[in-house]
Amino acid sequence: EDGATLFKKKTCFSCHGKDANTPLLPNYPRLAGQNADYALAQMKDIKSGVRNNGQTAGMKGVMHLVNDEEMKAIADWLSGLK
Amino acid sequence: EDGATLFKKKTCFSCHGKDANTPLLPNYPRLAGQNADYALAQMKDIKSGVRNNGQTAGMKGVMHLVNDEEMKAIADWLSGLK
Repeated sequence: EDGATLFKKKTCFSCHGKDANTPLLPNYPRLAGQNADYALAQMKDIKSGVRNNGQTAGMKGVMHLVNDEEMKAIADWLSGLK
Repeated sequence: EDGATLFKKKTCFSCHGKDANTPLLPNYPRLAGQNADYALAQMKDIKSGVRNNGQTAGMKGVMHLVNDEEMKAIADWLSGLK
């Protein structure tokens, strides 16, 4: 499935905003236009726990919903947004 | 000093790009327009080591150059960029 569909189905939009640019809270990151490699690395590190600072605990709780291929599709979609 | 001046003086631009939007490497984040609270929290967590994933080791090496007030000025400046 494509990144846009996954971003909805896997609940990402609920914290990061439908447009990936209007996060629910000011201490959540805006993701639209982010480098795909960087975004993918953060998803993987939060899923594995290698990154566990700030608000990542909440995100870690949903990362079981996505596999590597799906995280890549989401990261690529994000990087294409304005 | 204001965030723009600090972003130059404290070497941030060398990895994140003069416009904070053209990072040196694809696994470095684009920062322009990022939420100020989020950006500040990441700077503090990388400086303290609470966040130490990915490429943060290199950044940790320069964080002694900035204090809390300067990090806040940089974060606020970043959030105002397009």
